[in-house]
Amino acid sequence: MGIRLGDNQYGKAEVHLVHVNRDTDIHHLKDINVTSQLRGDLEDVHTVGDNARCLPTDTQKNTVYAKAREWGGVGAIEDFALRLARHFVDEHEYVHGAREEVQEYSWSRIRTSDGPHDHAFTQDGGETRTTVVNKDGDREWVVSGFEGLTVLKSTGSEFHSYPKTKYTTLPETNDRILATDVTARWRYVGVDHDYDKAYEAVRALCLEAFANTHSLALQQTLYEMGKAVLEARPEIAEIRFSMPNNHHFLVDLTPFGLDNPNEVFFAADRPYGKIEATVERDDAPGAGQAWKHVPGFV
Amino acid sequence: MGIRLGDNQYGKAEVHLVHVNRDTDIHHLKDINVTSQLRGDLEDVHTVGDNARCLPTDTQKNTVYAKAREWGGVGAIEDFALRLARHFVDEHEYVHGAREEVQEYSWSRIRTSDGPHDHAFTQDGGETRTTVVNKDGDREWVVSGFEGLTVLKSTGSEFHSYPKTKYTTLPETNDRILATDVTARWRYVGVDHDYDKAYEAVRALCLEAFANTHSLALQQTLYEMGKAVLEARPEIAEIRFSMPNNHHFLVDLTPFGLDNPNEVFFAADRPYGKIEATVERDDAPGAGQAWKHVPGFV
Amino acid sequence: MGIRLGDNQYGKAEVHLVHVNRDTDIHHLKDINVTSQLRGDLEDVHTVGDNARCLPTDTQKNTVYAKAREWGGVGAIEDFALRLARHFVDEHEYVHGAREEVQEYSWSRIRTSDGPHDHAFTQDGGETRTTVVNKDGDREWVVSGFEGLTVLKSTGSEFHSYPKTKYTTLPETNDRILATDVTARWRYVGVDHDYDKAYEAVRALCLEAFANTHSLALQQTLYEMGKAVLEARPEIAEIRFSMPNNHHFLVDLTPFGLDNPNEVFFAADRPYGKIEATVERDDAPGAGQAWKHVPGFV
Amino acid sequence: MGIRLGDNQYGKAEVHLVHVNRDTDIHHLKDINVTSQLRGDLEDVHTVGDNARCLPTDTQKNTVYAKAREWGGVGAIEDFALRLARHFVDEHEYVHGAREEVQEYSWSRIRTSDGPHDHAFTQDGGETRTTVVNKDGDREWVVSGFEGLTVLKSTGSEFHSYPKTKYTTLPETNDRILATDVTARWRYVGVDHDYDKAYEAVRALCLEAFANTHSLALQQTLYEMGKAVLEARPEIAEIRFSMPNNHHFLVDLTPFGLDNPNEVFFAADRPYGKIEATVERDDAPGAGQAWKHVPGFV
Repeated sequence: MGIRLGDNQYGKAEVHLVHVNRDTDIHHLKDINVTSQLRGDLEDVHTVGDNARCLPTDTQKNTVYAKAREWGGVGAIEDFALRLARHFVDEHEYVHGAREEVQEYSWSRIRTSDGPHDHAFTQDGGETRTTVVNKDGDREWVVSGFEGLTVLKSTGSEFHSYPKTKYTTLPETNDRILATDVTARWRYVGVDHDYDKAYEAVRALCLEAFANTHSLALQQTLYEMGKAVLEARPEIAEIRFSMPNNHHFLVDLTPFGLDNPNEVFFAADRPYGKIEATVERDDAPGAGQAWKHVPGFV
Repeated sequence: MGIRLGDNQYGKAEVHLVHVNRDTDIHHLKDINVTSQLRGDLEDVHTVGDNARCLPTDTQKNTVYAKAREWGGVGAIEDFALRLARHFVDEHEYVHGAREEVQEYSWSRIRTSDGPHDHAFTQDGGETRTTVVNKDGDREWVVSGFEGLTVLKSTGSEFHSYPKTKYTTLPETNDRILATDVTARWRYVGVDHDYDKAYEAVRALCLEAFANTHSLALQQTLYEMGKAVLEARPEIAEIRFSMPNNHHFLVDLTPFGLDNPNEVFFAADRPYGKIEATVERDDAPGAGQAWKHVPGFV
Repeated sequence: MGIRLGDNQYGKAEVHLVHVNRDTDIHHLKDINVTSQLRGDLEDVHTVGDNARCLPTDTQKNTVYAKAREWGGVGAIEDFALRLARHFVDEHEYVHGAREEVQEYSWSRIRTSDGPHDHAFTQDGGETRTTVVNKDGDREWVVSGFEGLTVLKSTGSEFHSYPKTKYTTLPETNDRILATDVTARWRYVGVDHDYDKAYEAVRALCLEAFANTHSLALQQTLYEMGKAVLEARPEIAEIRFSMPNNHHFLVDLTPFGLDNPNEVFFAADRPYGKIEATVERDDAPGAGQAWKHVPGFV
Repeated sequence: MGIRLGDNQYGKAEVHLVHVNRDTDIHHLKDINVTSQLRGDLEDVHTVGDNARCLPTDTQKNTVYAKAREWGGVGAIEDFALRLARHFVDEHEYVHGAREEVQEYSWSRIRTSDGPHDHAFTQDGGETRTTVVNKDGDREWVVSGFEGLTVLKSTGSEFHSYPKTKYTTLPETNDRILATDVTARWRYVGVDHDYDKAYEAVRALCLEAFANTHSLALQQTLYEMGKAVLEARPEIAEIRFSMPNNHHFLVDLTPFGLDNPNEVFFAADRPYGKIEATVERDDAPGAGQAWKHVPGFV
C-alpha cells in the first residue's frame, strides 16, 4: 500500500478589486471579487515542501490587480477570468491548469435633482453575478450564473396530489405563496460570447418564466425557467438551479375569531425545501471538466 | 447592602410577517420583521418566578399576526408599531411601557414583456427601513431610520491637513474613493406624520447630499446629509448617523512598471473608519426617553 | 432656528491584532479586536471639513499596534483599553474623550501525545470576552462582559401561571428545554482590578447559577445569575443581561402513532424570546457616562 | 434539438433536531441539522407538475423527527443518515436514491462546584462534525468530515524558494505564523464502522500533524495531516482538505522607532490563500458516486 497526492489546486481567494474607468468625467465602476487557483507540478510542494514550482498565492493576487491596469479595465467578468487563466497557464511551464472564479456586485448612479450623478453610486442589492472559468491545458470551460435572486409569487402556485404515507401531515393547497432565492449556473458552448448581453437575457428569461408559470410544484417552475433559457440562447448547453422553497405559512387566526384568506403569513427560516436540477439540450457537447471544480449542486 | 432589579424589558424578537393585500388582482406585499418588548410590574417574575403579570412572549407574537388581520393590513411601519404599543399598554394594567421595533424589506414587481406583474415580485436589496417606537405610559416617541444604504463616490473626496504625530504614516490625498454604508436614525417631533412620505424624502435628501458634497472629511459629508434633512423636514428634531469609512486603497503597481492614476483599488474589509454623529435643531423639544432603548451609536 | 452638531465620536473599528509572547519557547497568544473612537474639538471637521483637530483613524490604528509592542504585550483587555484611552486623551489637547472597545478570542494549546504543544493552538469557540472603556476628561468607566455563551438545560424549567388573554394559545408546561445565548455586561466600581480573575469568576458564577436554578421563567434564571455575581464580587456595581429564549419545541409525533416524552425537539430560529434586565446594588455609585456609548440593551 | 431534464434531487434542508436521552437522570444531548434529498422518477414533476411520485419535503422532515423517536435516538450521525437513506429508498418504489447530510454541534456539561451537571450544558464552539451519505439503489457511500477547526502555529513555519516573476513582491520568510480553518472530508471504505471512534481519531491525528510538522508550505502541512490519517485508519480510502491560509502580517513598526521580532501581527480577512488537495491510498477502491453530491473542493 502507498499513499499519494490526488487532485489538488491552490491560490488566492477573494481578491476584492474595484476598477474606476475615468476616461471621461462620467465614471464607470466595476466591483469584483476574484478567486484564482492553479494546478500543475505540485507533487513536491505537498510531499517535501519544495516550492520551486509553486507560484505564490501572493503573486496571483498581484497579477489580478496589475492585469486590471494593463488591460485597461476588467470588461465582462468571463473575459477577465479567461485572460487570467490563459496568463497563468501560458506564462508558467509548471502551471497546467487554472480555475478563475469571479463575483460581481453591481452599482447604480445616484439620481439627483440634476439627473444621474457622474461619480456617485449606490450599491444594488439583489443578486450577485458569478463566473467560474476552468482551463486544463488547451481546453477551456465557462460556467456563469447568479446567486441570491430572491423572488416571490403571492398567488398562482398550488401543491397537491402528492403521495400520502404514514409520515404525511401536510395539507394540500391550491393557493400558496411561492418564494425562493434563485442560484443559477449555466455552461456555455465555447468561449467566445457577448457575456454581458447573455447575462441580461438569462436573468430576464428566468424572471419572466418564474412570474408567468402557474406553478404546481417548484420543480415545474424551475424547469420552465431552464427551458425558457435554453430555447432562447443557443450558446448555452445546460443550466443548473438550486432553489430553496422559502416557506410562508398561513397563520391560523381562528383561535382569535379571525379568518385568514391568504393574507397573513409567517415567513419561516429553517427548515426549507431544497430543489436542485439541471435542464439541458439533448444534443449539447459533453461537459468535460466544466463542472469539476464548481461548488455544485446535484 | 441589597441587590435589586434595575431596568428591564422582555418580549418576542423577529416575528417575520408577510402581508398580502389582495383587494384587487394587483397584489401588494408588506414584508416586516417585528420585535415587541414590554415593561411593567415585572419584579416578581424576576425575583421569585411569579408569572402572574408576565404576558407571554408567545402572546405578543400572536398579537402581531392577529392585528395585521384585524387592522386590514400593516400600513406604515411607524403606525403599526404605535398601534401595537398602544394595544399592549392600554389593554393590560400590568404593562406600563412598550418598545416596538420593525424592520421592513422592500419588493418590486417583476417586469415582464407584458409590463409589471400583478403578483410576482423580486426582493430589492439595498437598505432596510427601520423604526423603534417607545411608549411609557402616555408618552410616545418614534425613531425611524434605515440600515445598509451602501454608497460610493469615485472622486470628489479629499483628506489632508490633519494633525501629524509620532504615529502618523497616512499620506495626504486630494482625490480618494469615499464609500460607506449609511445607517441613519431620526427622531420625529410628535407621532402624527405621513411616515412613508417622510421616509422617501429623507432617503433622497441623504443620497443627494452624499453625491453633491465635495468632501474634505467623511464627517463633513455626514453633517451635510443631516443638515439637508433638517432643513427640509420640520417634523424631524434630530438625525443620527453611523457611517463606516469603507477604505478603498489605491494599489501600488510601480513594482510591475505600471502607474495607477486612481483606477485600481483594493477594497478592504477590516479595519474600517467609524464615524458617528448627531445633527440636531437647537430649538427642538427634548428627546425624553426616545433613545433610551434604541441600539445606538454615540 | 439653527442646526448644530450634537454628540459625536469617530475612530477605527475592528483593528484585529494578534500578539505572540515569545519570552520562552512556550509561546502565549493574545488575539484581540480593537475599536478606538475619540471625542473632542470636532465642530470644524463636521461643519467645514477642517481636519486640524481630527487625529486620523489611521493614526489610531497605528497606535494600537505600536503600543502592543511598546508596552511589551496586551495584558488584560481592560488594562489595554484604559492605557489606550489615557494615551489618546492625555497626549492630544484637542481630544477630550475616548471610547476603547476590545473583543478577545481565546485559544488553547493543541494536546499532542507529548502533552500540550509549545506553539500550536486551536481556537476555542464559545463566548467572546468584551470590554468597553470610556474616558471623559479625568473620569473613566469600565464595562466588561461576554457574548455568545450558549447554554441549555434539558429539564428543570417550567413556564405556567401567566395571564391568559384573547390572544393566548401557548400551553402551560412544567418541563421544557431552556436554552439561551448569554450576553452579559457588568460595570466595575473604579478602574483598578484584577480583570482576568474577575472575568473567570463571573463566567463561572453565571454558569453555575444557570445550571442550578430550577427555573419558573427565564427572567428568574437571569436574576439569579446576576445576584450570584453581585453577591460574590464587590468590585461589580451592576450587571446587565440580554438573553434570547431559544425555543425548542416538542415535536408532535402523535400523527405517526408515537409518543414524545420530552425527547425529540425542533430547535427554532425565529422568532425567539428576548429577555433583558439589569441586576444592581442599591448602594452602588452612579453609572455616570458608563453606559452612554455601550451598544445596549434596555 | 430537444430540451430535457438532467441530474436532479430535492428535499428538506436544515431540519434542526435536538434529542434528549433521558434514560437516567444524567441526560445526554444530540444536536443535529439534517438535510434530506431524494432522487427518483421525477421527470413528470418537472415537466408537467405531476406530483404523484414526489414525496413531499414536509414528509421527509416529519420522517427525520419520527425516526429519531422510533429508533430510540440518533446514534452516530453516519448511522442515522444511512438508516434514513435506506428508509426512503426501500420504502418508496419511486425513490431510487437519497442524499442525507448531517451536521452535529457538540455540547459539554456545565462544571459546577458539585461536578459536571446532570442536565445543564454549554455549547462547544469550534468545529462542526459532518457527514454526507449517498445511496443509489443498493450502493452506499459515506463521506464524513468536519468544518471550522481553526488552528494556528506561532512559529515552525517557513515560506521561501518559490518562483520569482515579474509580479512577485512577497518577501521570503523562515518564521511566520501559520493559521487555517481546516475543513476535511474523508471517504470510508464500506459502511460498517465505529464512526464516533473514527471521528475522534481523525481529528486528533490532524491536530497532532498540524502541530508537529515543521512547515515549509501549507500544502506540506496538509499532506502530512492526510498521510497521518491514512496510515492510522485503514477504513478510510481518501481524505480531502480545504484550508485557507489565514494571513497574519507582521506589522512594520519601524516608522515609530520600534522593532517587531515576530510579536505583533495584523490578522487579515481578505484575500486569503486557499489550499485544496486530496490524499489517497493507491490501492483504495474507486470512489464511485461518493463525491458526486458533496459540495466540494477540487
